[in-house]
Order: sequence, then structure tokens, then C-alpha cells
Amino acid sequence: MKLPDAHPLAAGRTDRSRLVTALRGGAADTVPVWFMRQAGRSLPEYRELRVGTRMLDACLEPELAAEITLQPVRRHGVDAAVFFSDIVVPLKLLGVDVEIQPGRGPVFGRRHDTAEAVAELTAIDPDGLEAASGPIVEAVQRTIAELDRTDDGSGAATPLIGFAGAPFTLAAYLVEGGPSKDHLAARTLMHADPGAWRALMDWTSAVSGNFLRTQVLAGASAAQLFDSWAGSLGLADYGDFVQDASARAIGVARDLGVPTIHFGVGTGELLPQMAAVGVDAVGVDWRTPLDEAARRTEGKVALQGNLDPAYLAAPRAVLEAAAADVVRRGRTAPGHVFNLGHGVPPSADPGVLTDLVAFVHEAGAR
Amino acid sequence: MKLPDAHPLAAGRTDRSRLVTALRGGAADTVPVWFMRQAGRSLPEYRELRVGTRMLDACLEPELAAEITLQPVRRHGVDAAVFFSDIVVPLKLLGVDVEIQPGRGPVFGRRHDTAEAVAELTAIDPDGLEAASGPIVEAVQRTIAELDRTDDGSGAATPLIGFAGAPFTLAAYLVEGGPSKDHLAARTLMHADPGAWRALMDWTSAVSGNFLRTQVLAGASAAQLFDSWAGSLGLADYGDFVQDASARAIGVARDLGVPTIHFGVGTGELLPQMAAVGVDAVGVDWRTPLDEAARRTEGKVALQGNLDPAYLAAPRAVLEAAAADVVRRGRTAPGHVFNLGHGVPPSADPGVLTDLVAFVHEAGAR
Repeated sequence: MKLPDAHPLAAGRTDRSRLVTALRGGAADTVPVWFMRQAGRSLPEYRELRVGTRMLDACLEPELAAEITLQPVRRHGVDAAVFFSDIVVPLKLLGVDVEIQPGRGPVFGRRHDTAEAVAELTAIDPDGLEAASGPIVEAVQRTIAELDRTDDGSGAATPLIGFAGAPFTLAAYLVEGGPSKDHLAARTLMHADPGAWRALMDWTSAVSGNFLRTQVLAGASAAQLFDSWAGSLGLADYGDFVQDASARAIGVARDLGVPTIHFGVGTGELLPQMAAVGVDAVGVDWRTPLDEAARRTEGKVALQGNLDPAYLAAPRAVLEAAAADVVRRGRTAPGHVFNLGHGVPPSADPGVLTDLVAFVHEAGAR
Repeated sequence: MKLPDAHPLAAGRTDRSRLVTALRGGAADTVPVWFMRQAGRSLPEYRELRVGTRMLDACLEPELAAEITLQPVRRHGVDAAVFFSDIVVPLKLLGVDVEIQPGRGPVFGRRHDTAEAVAELTAIDPDGLEAASGPIVEAVQRTIAELDRTDDGSGAATPLIGFAGAPFTLAAYLVEGGPSKDHLAARTLMHADPGAWRALMDWTSAVSGNFLRTQVLAGASAAQLFDSWAGSLGLADYGDFVQDASARAIGVARDLGVPTIHFGVGTGELLPQMAAVGVDAVGVDWRTPLDEAARRTEGKVALQGNLDPAYLAAPRAVLEAAAADVVRRGRTAPGHVFNLGHGVPPSADPGVLTDLVAFVHEAGAR
């Protein structure tokens, strides 16, 4: 794909928003808040919309995907929408045989754990994503058409965050053929056949980057790369076999001029490398306090996170003390976007989330 | 239970073994090797024995459990047997409603996620384990009767390692009612009802300690506490809600005079605390290089680990280079027991494991 000279859509509409300001290291009127998986099963209006529609079908139905993306913005007053999709959507659009099984996750028609299987996969041109992304473009455009009528409290429209699974996480699913506990198959291919591994990572990196690019060109104001499984890697393997592919993927969004967020689970020890791929912000899971994360990333990036979702079911005073602690520690970073340290659990009480947004806005006000 | 004045069985038989020597920080003739899950599905002779017998039934059939425990010693020439059991066995013996579902793991008849459910559970006297442990005692005795006829190469008999699930890991299963990805239910109870949490941890700590005690009194020469899920906790929660319970559990074995090993997965950042519970050795997963682990534990404990099981399927030269690297880094610790960084994968080639034992014995020779 040829890169455009400038990002035609996001500029102006959301530059002064709380989210974009904080991601760029500036001081908004208060700490912006959104929740990973805010669009999803915790909301009754989501469960109602999804009845009878399979996950990947819902992702590829523009009107439905846009509506689901907007639901938590309306209900909770969060400072960002995050595009409702799934990390395997770009693979599906490229014709890879994958379905999402409820309660299990993405399941592929085959494992890609040999050089031959990888070669067959990488024979698919990742640039074919552009032609196949009509439903994504339409869903993003529908979403921002409505978001542009909002005001996040700072006079700007509420921004949309685009997202993609990181190259390693896509590769881990593809090699294993589905979810696994420790991603052993991926690490096995990595060490048993480094050549095949690099070919796979080049390909998933292009897929991730192209998926982010599609969302940004359609109007997303920021981009988050999710590396759900990077925490299964030690520092050396992450640096040798993963980091560069992630840098290339997220670089596509950064080069389009939108702020970028890099998130992983169980990646406390990888934070310096995850920052070093060239991003505006690093997402931190619940294990690492934000002041410690700021120390590890040497104050070079904004931080996003990281209330343990376990507090959502705690007594209100306990929850608020924990949220206030996150806000306090977040002040040690150049910019802070409040979030949970992992996705919203399906069992979460939506009323608690709504109140949490208000609490953080008050606790984080300057 | 009343503690005996001295440990009547292990003394003498295995004190000079490679394993006990290394765990106590001494220099054996070479680096001892054993593999977590060495007794299990990677061995055809195990799969044959298990046909038609459910996992927990196999654990409670003394002749079968002893035979399974001995199989990898005979086949691989490892320097320790590890007692074939499961972390939920003591719960089963105490009458808790639990089964192991193949491919899924332990599944309980109910969740223990409320103060009421915890109170019903903790009403069971953990000291009742002694009277119920006949099959465990017999299996251990059968095992060591045969081990006492071996020689690990140093003139001592091959030692048996007893093991128990750590209090947090038991609690995480009990609260969730089964396996889970991130143990959110356990952390939720921890924060929502710290009183119920502490009651649960006091109980699981007593269960773990009693299970270790039973095995040591029956003749095990060392004890390993497995905290499979501790890696889901940040440092502060581990210190506040878990560490003391683990210290008490493993202290039971230590007080009986056998060397102790404390192992967790994804616990690189918890290593100093895991050493501080008062153990002879800390098990390290594949993520943290052993020299870094030695630095974190300040050279105060021996280390066990930590070849990434992913290398088992790599070309022989790659595997051996990785194993040699583990041996080299292990030299920075006061004592080193070679192991994988996680359990043997069911798909592992047993011949590779046998050769790996010989390779490490040669590479680690003094």
C-alpha cells in the first residue's frame, strides 16, 4: 500500500481530546478513562444485540459493529471508543479458515506449525486486506460519524481507538491452531525452525499493520496493538524473535500520525522493550504498579492502566481506594490513560463501571 | 499432628545424593537432573498403565502410583523421582467434591467464592488428612523400597521428591471451581472479602503442609511446593495475601529436615519473596535466565530449572546449546538442579529426554 501524505480524517476532530492529549504526554483537564473490552458481554444491550449472531459475523456487519462500539460510550461516558472487532478478523478477511468458538476462542482449521504450513499461509498477500476491508471501513466511518457529535468534556469529539492483535499473538494462535495455556507450539517453532518463524512473523506483522492502517485511514484517532501472549516469552526471546515485528506493525499507525498504545499481559519485565518499539504509550497489566512501570520505561512514554478487574466486585470503598491509588501512581508518568489491567470481565456490573468513570474523572481532575 | 523428633526415613539413604547435595548448596560430581511431569503422558509405558484408570484413581492406587513414579527413573536415569500425584489429591482425600477432567483439569462440584462456601470448606479438619492418607503412605513406601536399590552415581540411592500444590494455587482452583485463565475469581475474593480469603488460605496452607508431611514421613527425601498460578499476582498482593501461607506450608517439610524447593510459573518478579519463605531452592520457569535469578535471590538459595520445553523439539545442536547455556548460567547459583522451565509436554519424545539427562551429566561434570 502507498502511504498518504497526511492522515485526512482524525486531524482536528480529536486532537484536543483527553485521550489524545494524555497519550501525547500532555495535561488534559482530567485523566481520560476507557476500558478494554468495554464493548462486550458485560452490557445487557450488547448481549441483546448479539443474540443469534456469531462473533465474527457481528464484527463484519458494519451497522452492528458500529452500534456495539458506541454502546459503552453512551452508557459509561468513557473518553474513547474502541473499535469492536477481534484480533483474528483480518485473518478471516484474508481467507484463513478460522472461527470463534464461544467459551474457547479462535479455532483454526489447521495448525501452522511446520515450514510447509507457514509457506502456504504466507503465500496469501497481506496487502489483499485493503480490498477485503469494506465492512471495517464502513463500520469505522459509521462509528466516527456518531462520535463526532459527542463532546468528551474538553470541547473535542470522543476519539475512536483502532486495534490489532500483535504479530506474536497472531502467530501463537496460528501455530497452535487455537488457544493454548502457554503457547508452547509457537516457542517450539521459533527455536526449531527460526527461518519459518521469521517468515510467519513478517506475514503477521504485515497483517497487523494493514489492519491498523485500515482503521486509521477510515477515521480512528489512535491505535492499540494487543500482544495478549507476549508474557509467555523471556526477555531474550522477545528481543530476538518478536520485538522487531511489533515495531513494524505499530509503525504503520504511527507513521499515519496517530498516537499508539502497546499492550501486553504478564509483560512487566518486557515494558522497556515494548516502549522501545516506538510508541506513545504502553499499556500495563494489573501486576505492575504504574509508578514502577514509569521507572522501567524511564518516563519516555505515557502509560495506560491498570486497575485489577478483581476490584470491580469489591465493596465500593475498597474499589475507590484502589482506583485512587492507580490515579496517584499514574501521575508519575508523562501521561496517564486510566484503564483496567485487563479486559472487563463478562460478569462485571455495568453500573460499577459507569460510577468508576465518574470517580476517576473527579480523582484525576487538575 | 505432633512433629517427630527427627526424620526417621530419609537420613542416610540419600543425604549424599546429587539432588540433596545440590539443593543444600554443595558440589556434587555433576549437575543433578529431573523433569517436572517426568512421570506422565510423554512415556508410552505410562499411557499403557493408565488405560481405563481415571487420574485421581491412579493417584490413589499405591502399586500403580509407585510404578508410574519409578518409570522415568528407570528409563531416563534422572537423579530424582517425583511422587506421581496431583495437587488436588489431598482435597479429594478430605472429601472435597473434585474430579480431574482429561484435557481440562480439576473440576469441583461447586465454587468456593463466598464467605459461606469458604466456611463450609474450612469446617473440614485438615488434620483429617493423616487418617485418610493410607494410599499415599503405601505408594511412597513402595517407591522408596525400589529407589533404595538404585545408585544415582554418587553412591547414594535416588531420592524421592514429595510435592504439594501451594496454598494459593489450591485456593485459586477452589474459588473458581476449576481451571481458569487468569484466576480472577481468586483475586476478587481476596479483595472483596479479605477475611474469607485469609480463612481459605489458612486452610489450604494446612492441607499443603499436611500433604508434604505425609510424604516426607513416609520416606520422601525432599519436598517441592508448586505454585502454578502465583504468577497471576503482583508483588504487593503476593506479599500481603499469599507469601505467609506458603511459608507455613513449606515450613512443615523444612522442619522435618528435608531440603525444600519452591516453584512457580511466570513468577520471575516474585523470586525474592519465593526464596524468602525459607526454602533451600527456588524453581525458575523458562522466562528468567538462571544467572538473573541468582542475582534476584542474592545467591541465598539453590536454583532449579530452567530449559524452555520448546527446545525439546528443536534440532539436537540447538537443544544442546540451550541446555549448555542453562548449565553455564546455573553455575552462578550456590547449587543447581537441572530441570525444564515447566512440565514435560505430553508430546515430548522420551528419547530426547533420556539423551538430555546424559548431556547435562556430561556438561555439568566437575
